[in-house]
Amino acid sequence: MSLRIVSQSVLNAWSQTLIRGMSTQGGSKNIGFVGLGNMGGHMASNLIKAGHKLHVFDISKPACDNLKAKGATVYSKTAELAQNVDFLFTMLPNNDIVDASYEEMTANGVNKNTIFIDSSTIDPTLVKSLQKRISAKGARFIDAPVSGGVPGAEQATLTFMVGGTEAEYNAVKSVLECMGKRITHCGDYGMGQAAKLANNMMLAISMIGVSEAMNLAIRLGLNPKTFAEIINSSTGRCWASELYNPVPGVTPTAPANNSYKGGFSTDLITKDLGLASGVATSSNTPIPMGALAHQIYRTLKSKGLGSKDFSIVYDFMKNENN
Amino acid sequence: MSLRIVSQSVLNAWSQTLIRGMSTQGGSKNIGFVGLGNMGGHMASNLIKAGHKLHVFDISKPACDNLKAKGATVYSKTAELAQNVDFLFTMLPNNDIVDASYEEMTANGVNKNTIFIDSSTIDPTLVKSLQKRISAKGARFIDAPVSGGVPGAEQATLTFMVGGTEAEYNAVKSVLECMGKRITHCGDYGMGQAAKLANNMMLAISMIGVSEAMNLAIRLGLNPKTFAEIINSSTGRCWASELYNPVPGVTPTAPANNSYKGGFSTDLITKDLGLASGVATSSNTPIPMGALAHQIYRTLKSKGLGSKDFSIVYDFMKNENN
Amino acid sequence: MSLRIVSQSVLNAWSQTLIRGMSTQGGSKNIGFVGLGNMGGHMASNLIKAGHKLHVFDISKPACDNLKAKGATVYSKTAELAQNVDFLFTMLPNNDIVDASYEEMTANGVNKNTIFIDSSTIDPTLVKSLQKRISAKGARFIDAPVSGGVPGAEQATLTFMVGGTEAEYNAVKSVLECMGKRITHCGDYGMGQAAKLANNMMLAISMIGVSEAMNLAIRLGLNPKTFAEIINSSTGRCWASELYNPVPGVTPTAPANNSYKGGFSTDLITKDLGLASGVATSSNTPIPMGALAHQIYRTLKSKGLGSKDFSIVYDFMKNENN
Amino acid sequence: MSLRIVSQSVLNAWSQTLIRGMSTQGGSKNIGFVGLGNMGGHMASNLIKAGHKLHVFDISKPACDNLKAKGATVYSKTAELAQNVDFLFTMLPNNDIVDASYEEMTANGVNKNTIFIDSSTIDPTLVKSLQKRISAKGARFIDAPVSGGVPGAEQATLTFMVGGTEAEYNAVKSVLECMGKRITHCGDYGMGQAAKLANNMMLAISMIGVSEAMNLAIRLGLNPKTFAEIINSSTGRCWASELYNPVPGVTPTAPANNSYKGGFSTDLITKDLGLASGVATSSNTPIPMGALAHQIYRTLKSKGLGSKDFSIVYDFMKNENN
Repeated sequence: MSLRIVSQSVLNAWSQTLIRGMSTQGGSKNIGFVGLGNMGGHMASNLIKAGHKLHVFDISKPACDNLKAKGATVYSKTAELAQNVDFLFTMLPNNDIVDASYEEMTANGVNKNTIFIDSSTIDPTLVKSLQKRISAKGARFIDAPVSGGVPGAEQATLTFMVGGTEAEYNAVKSVLECMGKRITHCGDYGMGQAAKLANNMMLAISMIGVSEAMNLAIRLGLNPKTFAEIINSSTGRCWASELYNPVPGVTPTAPANNSYKGGFSTDLITKDLGLASGVATSSNTPIPMGALAHQIYRTLKSKGLGSKDFSIVYDFMKNENN
Repeated sequence: MSLRIVSQSVLNAWSQTLIRGMSTQGGSKNIGFVGLGNMGGHMASNLIKAGHKLHVFDISKPACDNLKAKGATVYSKTAELAQNVDFLFTMLPNNDIVDASYEEMTANGVNKNTIFIDSSTIDPTLVKSLQKRISAKGARFIDAPVSGGVPGAEQATLTFMVGGTEAEYNAVKSVLECMGKRITHCGDYGMGQAAKLANNMMLAISMIGVSEAMNLAIRLGLNPKTFAEIINSSTGRCWASELYNPVPGVTPTAPANNSYKGGFSTDLITKDLGLASGVATSSNTPIPMGALAHQIYRTLKSKGLGSKDFSIVYDFMKNENN
Repeated sequence: MSLRIVSQSVLNAWSQTLIRGMSTQGGSKNIGFVGLGNMGGHMASNLIKAGHKLHVFDISKPACDNLKAKGATVYSKTAELAQNVDFLFTMLPNNDIVDASYEEMTANGVNKNTIFIDSSTIDPTLVKSLQKRISAKGARFIDAPVSGGVPGAEQATLTFMVGGTEAEYNAVKSVLECMGKRITHCGDYGMGQAAKLANNMMLAISMIGVSEAMNLAIRLGLNPKTFAEIINSSTGRCWASELYNPVPGVTPTAPANNSYKGGFSTDLITKDLGLASGVATSSNTPIPMGALAHQIYRTLKSKGLGSKDFSIVYDFMKNENN
Repeated sequence: MSLRIVSQSVLNAWSQTLIRGMSTQGGSKNIGFVGLGNMGGHMASNLIKAGHKLHVFDISKPACDNLKAKGATVYSKTAELAQNVDFLFTMLPNNDIVDASYEEMTANGVNKNTIFIDSSTIDPTLVKSLQKRISAKGARFIDAPVSGGVPGAEQATLTFMVGGTEAEYNAVKSVLECMGKRITHCGDYGMGQAAKLANNMMLAISMIGVSEAMNLAIRLGLNPKTFAEIINSSTGRCWASELYNPVPGVTPTAPANNSYKGGFSTDLITKDLGLASGVATSSNTPIPMGALAHQIYRTLKSKGLGSKDFSIVYDFMKNENN
C-alpha cells in the first residue's frame, strides 16, 4: 500500500539486499514458493537475492520461467517440491485454493523438517485447521500474511504478521526479513490473519469515513487542502487522511492523483472485508461500521470499480451534478 | 479532548500566560463573554489572566460570581454589555439559544466597533444568517468554534477554527491566542463550523471503527496491547487508536482507564453528529458511515450513556456473556 | 403512489363527484388554493368539480390559467386571496416556501373565519409554529399532508392525514373528501406530518429491503416471480413486494415495468427521509435503518437518478457484470 | 412464527390429521427422523399421527423416549437407521452438525431408495455439496427448510420451501403435507434454503423498520394504535406491522404483549442473517440493509436478549429516560 516508499528505494533496496545477503552467510536455505503471482513473484525473487535456493511452483508457465531465469528450480508437483525444502511459502488467492494446495502437498506425508508458512489472506479458522492437520503429520505450519502491496513485495518492505509459537516465530524471522522490514509476532496460530483482517477492516472504515468528511467539507465550501491540514492536525486524522488522501490534489503520491490506478484494489479490500465479516459472524462480534464498509465496497465492485484503488470511494460518493 | 496534555501543564500554562500578558501590553481590551459554562468559564478566566477587562453574562449566578471574584464586571442585560466591548464571545449550548441571544443583544442596535465571535458549535447556516443580520446593523460577526474540551479550555490550549475574512481573522487572532494554541483560518463565514463538524464526524467514525476492530481482534484471540501496537504502526491507525484507545489498559491516560468518565461526552458527539447530518441533508451529501455513527451514538444516549466519554462505544459493543 | 388504482377510476371518479357535489348542496364554499403544481392543480380542479368556488394563486401563469379556464378566480396577492375564503389550502415544495408564504398571507391580519390547511410535506415543528402564529392572529391552522401521488390527486383518491382538534377535523372533513377517499385524524397539530414521515420512512426501508431480498434470491438462482410469490405469502411480505415490486416483470403495473418512469420519485422520497431524519434528531430517536435508507437514496440522487421512481434502487444494486 | 394460528387449531388439527391419515391409507411409509428438538419432535409426532412408521435418533435420551412412547423405533446409530427408511428427515442446528451427520449416515453406503430431506436452515452451498455426495452414492437428497416456528410444527401448519427436481418435489409432497399446510417448490437444489434466507432477511429488515417507524411516531406524539392503523392501510404496511407489531398493546396475540417471550427468537433470526450474509458475500450481492439488520440483531444478542422474541428490537430502541 505504501506507494510513497517508491521514491526512496532503489539504492536502499540494493544496500539492504547486500546486508541481508551477508546475514545469511553460511545460512543459505532451500526455500519453496508456491504461488508466483503479483506478490509471490517479487517475494521469491527477493529470497533469491538474499542468497537462498528457491524451489518454485505456479500454474502459470511464464511466472515459473521468470523465476527459473533468476536461478530457481521449477517443479510440476508440489508434493515433490515440499520434500526438498526447509521453508515452504504459499501465496495463493483464497481459502479454497490454499486448502486444496495443502491437501495435495501433504497427502503422502511430509518432510518433518519443513516449516510451512502461508502468506495468503485467509480465514483464521482455516489456519487453525491446517495447523492441526500438518502438525499431526509431523511438520510445522504457521500463518504470516502481509501488508504493503505489490510495491512492498517488490522492494522487500512488506510487513509480516506472524501467528505461531515464539520458537516458530524466531525460526522464520530471518527468512521473512529478506522480504519485509517489519516482522510482527501477533500470537498463536491464526493470529496473523486475525490481525490483518481487523486492521484492514479499520482501514476500509477510515477510507470511507475520510471520503465522507472531505466530501462534506468541500460541499460546505472548504478548500480541500485547508481541510486536509485541519483534520490531519486534529482528532479526525488517520493513515488514510495523512498518507493516502482520496481527494485528487491533496496527497501528491496517492492513487487519487493517478486516476485511482495502482494501489490497493477495491476487489482486494472487498475480499478482506468478506473474510472479516465471516469471522465476526462466527465469533458473534458486532461490526456495524465494518459491515457497512463491506456493503459499500461490494456496491462499488458491482458498479464495475473492482480493479480501481479503494480510495475511489470518494469519487463514487461525490456529487457531480447536484 | 487532549487529556494527555494534563500532565505537562501547570508551569507551562503559567509561563505562557506571562508571555501572553506581555504581548497585550498597551493592548488591554474590553471583552464580553456570554455563556460561562464548563468551557466558557475557563476561557473567560484565561482572558483575564492575559490582561483583558472582562464583561460577562450567564443565567447562572454562581458562574457570574466566580468571574466577578477574578475581576470581571457582571451584567444582567446582554444588550447593555454588548455596547461596552471591543470583542464579544458567545459560548452557548445550541442553535436556538445562540439565535435568541443575538436577537436580544442586537435588537436595539449595536456598537459598530464590536466584533462578535461565536465559539459555540452550531449549524453553519445559522452562522451565515447571523453574519448577515449583524453586518446589516454595522458590526462584524465571525464563527470560531473550538476543539480541545474542558482541559483545553482550562489550560488555554484550545484549537480555534475561524470562519471570516482574512482581516477579521487577523483582528481576533491575538485575542484567541489567550485561550488556545492553534488558531486556524478555515475560510469564509461558517467554515469554522463546517470544519469542526466534518472533523468530528470523522472522529466518531474512527472511534466506533477502532472499537469494532479492537473487539474483533480480542475476540479472535489477540492480546489488546499487541493488536493496538500492530494497528498503530499500520494502515488502520488513527487518532483514536493511538491516543485515546477505547479498550481499558491500552492508552494509560484515556478515559477508558477511568470508567469512561471525563473526556468528550456521548451527548456532545451526538449533538455534533446531529448538526453534521443536518448540513449533509441540506447540501445533498451522502454520509453513510457518518449517519450510522450518528445512530449508534443516539442509541447509546437512549441507553443512558449520554454523560460517559464517547469511547464507551467499545464497552457497549463487546460481548460479556457470549 | 397507488398506480393500480388507475385501472378502476374514470366512471368511479365521476359518480363519486356527483355524490360529493350533492353533499355540498347549499354548502358551496369559498376555497383558496395556493400552489397549483402537479398535485395542487388536480386537487383544486376536484374542488371545483365538487361545486366549490375556487380562489387560486401560483407563481406559474399557465398553472393559473388552467384553473381560471375551469372557473377559478386568480389572485396576484395571497394576502388578498386569504381574506375572501372559508378554507385555504397550501400545497408547496418545502419548509422555507411554506413559511414565507404564510408570513406573506397573514402579515396584515387574517379573516378570522378562515381555516388554513397545509397539505405540503413539511417538518411537524414548523406546523406547530405556524399553528401558534396563526391562532394568535385569530384564525385556525391545521396540517393535512397527503399520500397517493399524482394519480391520487387526479382521481380524488388521496389519503389525507390530518393534525388538529376533533372539531377542526370535522370542520374540514367534507371538503377533503372532495379530493380524497381516506381522511384520517392522526392527532393534534403536526401529527398528520408525523404520520406521513414515519410511514414514508418505513416505505423507503421496505423498498430497499425488498430490492436486496429479490436481488439476493435471483443471484442465488431463484426465479423472480416464484420468489415474489413465496415472499408475498410469507413473513417477508410488504406493500412494496406485493403491489410495487421493483423487479421488472413481477408486478405488471409497477414503474419497474416502465423503465422506472412515473410513480414516486427518488427526489421526493429523499426529501421525506431528510425530514424524517430531522425530526428523529430533534426527538432523540434512533433510526439506524431509516438513516441508512436516507443515505442510499441520497447516493442514488447524487448518481443522477433523482427523477426516477424510487424502486430504481433495485436496478442500482443488481450486479450487471459480475 | 404464526402465533395467531394458536387460536384456531385443536379441532382443526385433529380433523386435518384424520384426512391426512386417510390419504396415506395403504401408503404408510417408513420414515426416519434425525434431530428431535423443539421443531423436530413435533414434526415426527405429526408423521406418526398421519399413520407412518417412525425411525428416530437424537443425542437427547428424553427426546427419544418421548417419540418411543408414541410408537417410534429408536436407533443408536444413524447409519443403521438410514438403511431402513423410505424418507429420512434431518432437523439439526447448523451447517457443521448437518454435514457431520450426513457424513456418518452415508459413510458405508446408502439405501438407494431413500430420499434424504434436510429441513434444517443451512447454507445453500452445503445443500448443493450434500446433494452431489449423496447422489454419487446412488440415493437422493433435497432441501426443505420450514417457516412457522414451534406452533407451526406442533399444529402441522408449517410452510415447506423445497429445492429439488419436479419429480422429487412430487415424491415428497404428501409426506410434507403431514407436517405443514403450504408446500412450495422453489426450484433446484438449495433453492429452498435460498428462498428461506432471502425471506427471513426481509423479515428482519421489516421488523427493525417497523420498530423505528412506530418509535418515531410515538415520540413525535402519535397514539401507537392510531399510527398502526395508518401504516397498515398505507404504503408502509408489512407482515410485521399487521400481524406481529412490536409495540405492546397493538397486536393482541403478538409476543410484544407477552414480555417478548415465545415467538421467533433473536438467536434464530441472527443465525439466519449470518447465513444470508454468507451467501451474499459468496455471490457478490450488496445487502446494505440486510447487513445492518444482522449487526443490530448481533448487538441485541450480545446484550443478552438472544432468547427473546425478535420483536424486542423495538423495546431495545425506544428511549426510556430521555
